[in-house]
Amino acid sequence: MVKNIAGENTAFSNLNEGLGRVLRFGAYDAEVLERLRWMSSTLAPAIHRALQVLGGLELKPIIAQALHMGDECHNRNAAASSLLFKRLAGPLLRSGNDPTIAASLLEFMATNDHFFLNISMAACKAMLDAAHGVAGSSLVTVMARNGVEFGIRMSGTGDAWFTAPAPVVDGLFFPGYTKEDAAPDLGDSAITETAGIGGFAMAAAPAIVQFVGGTPQDALATTREMFHITLGSHRSFTLPQLNFGGSPAGIDARRVVDTGITPVINTGIAHRKAGIGQVGAGITRAPLACFIGAILSLAKQINVIPE
Amino acid sequence: MVKNIAGENTAFSNLNEGLGRVLRFGAYDAEVLERLRWMSSTLAPAIHRALQVLGGLELKPIIAQALHMGDECHNRNAAASSLLFKRLAGPLLRSGNDPTIAASLLEFMATNDHFFLNISMAACKAMLDAAHGVAGSSLVTVMARNGVEFGIRMSGTGDAWFTAPAPVVDGLFFPGYTKEDAAPDLGDSAITETAGIGGFAMAAAPAIVQFVGGTPQDALATTREMFHITLGSHRSFTLPQLNFGGSPAGIDARRVVDTGITPVINTGIAHRKAGIGQVGAGITRAPLACFIGAILSLAKQINVIPE
Repeated sequence: MVKNIAGENTAFSNLNEGLGRVLRFGAYDAEVLERLRWMSSTLAPAIHRALQVLGGLELKPIIAQALHMGDECHNRNAAASSLLFKRLAGPLLRSGNDPTIAASLLEFMATNDHFFLNISMAACKAMLDAAHGVAGSSLVTVMARNGVEFGIRMSGTGDAWFTAPAPVVDGLFFPGYTKEDAAPDLGDSAITETAGIGGFAMAAAPAIVQFVGGTPQDALATTREMFHITLGSHRSFTLPQLNFGGSPAGIDARRVVDTGITPVINTGIAHRKAGIGQVGAGITRAPLACFIGAILSLAKQINVIPE
Repeated sequence: MVKNIAGENTAFSNLNEGLGRVLRFGAYDAEVLERLRWMSSTLAPAIHRALQVLGGLELKPIIAQALHMGDECHNRNAAASSLLFKRLAGPLLRSGNDPTIAASLLEFMATNDHFFLNISMAACKAMLDAAHGVAGSSLVTVMARNGVEFGIRMSGTGDAWFTAPAPVVDGLFFPGYTKEDAAPDLGDSAITETAGIGGFAMAAAPAIVQFVGGTPQDALATTREMFHITLGSHRSFTLPQLNFGGSPAGIDARRVVDTGITPVINTGIAHRKAGIGQVGAGITRAPLACFIGAILSLAKQINVIPE
């Protein structure tokens, strides 16, 4: 549970299972279910107790620090997961957990460089929900995909979704898989790009190109390109590669439509058949049609275009 | 203790105390001594037991990974310390340590982003000792400073030291201190630059400029400059910012003398008076005179210059 302590809203996430054969990418065999039961019965209560000892944990400083350590906090969370691990290890031991169980929890987290991802997503959701519902605003507050459609929400258009077919991601595939195996783009994780990290902060994570393709120069160019479609730059999330300037943040649907530049997303790739799991990772773009639909709706709402 | 498992040699280091008022920067008050006694009586034996459970720990992969996470493994060790922490946490608990003591050890390590530094130094020393003693070689195998003199050793000149006065480092000072307080350059840590990391890998650590001064562009330019004085690039230590090319490694004293480009060193700054400790950090250069002295000695030895 992630609370926006400057506001009223709260966001939620489950805990990260790892890569490969995991439920969120469609795998559901005995090993997957056993891991989920262990996470529910053992991992989650222990983390809950550790967080009570800590009195909660501020997430923005962890994200900000990780952006200075080669993460973009969507597809690369190696630093953020390590920083979280360091913060939780002591409290896990001081909250009455059995040392052997604590060791197994720590070892699970230590070997999952994506453990922070779900927490990053919930943090971004909490930040963006605070910006939702401003009359007339063309700020994008959600980008999400379900393997069939890609949808966005905009601050000034309430609960309406503006959708288009989800693209297939052309990325780097795990051994034995190709683009033929890929499901169309899938998942909630594009909330990170919506908040100005993930693909928008790719300049901070040159090593991610080994996971999603391209060169470190491409990573820097991608971040720079995103400034053309954002309302500004982030005050807390700064990128060393931009000489410590803020990450491009706050997607303006009008600027997307005006420039034709669509938001970049670093993402995992699921197999198109249920039961297999993640098969790769890559870079994709949000479909332009979503933003055109959103701006047309906003224009009608404020009577720029008659109904 | 760091063993070169491809050879015969072994290197040693104490464990890192942290920054500020610490013995290695000249502080020796009651708090310093109490911490050292705790490190000797509690921390070191517990880590020893954890390493026995682990069966040892490979250091080159940790250094290589940290170079992809914004460290240069001399003055910035945030990622490497986190990676080490993750590897040690489970074994610390599985080796019979009391959980409350284990928690205090983990908390000490979690709050010291330089914990890996001393281990990095011993790893570099083990690598370089393996290259020492090659007849006729102008490879630099040691750079060290003692607050008065700066000295180097070269592979082909045995145990001889070639020295010059140690420079005063013009860096960033902790609040309340200035260059007037600084001792001349001091310590063994330039062994990291000698091995091709530290200042030589500064391109990998853009965020370090907040600690030692300069801009991320300077960091990249520094690494590029060092290629003019090295025999090659490192096979294992690659830098995303060089498109995953190897770090400049293997300082050739002849190239230093030929080009006048001297090795760069990222370093901490000690107060010139005993008892105070670290007062800043910055970038310095090895004195050219050391390299001229070494090359003259080698030239005499191989009869290029008569005695």
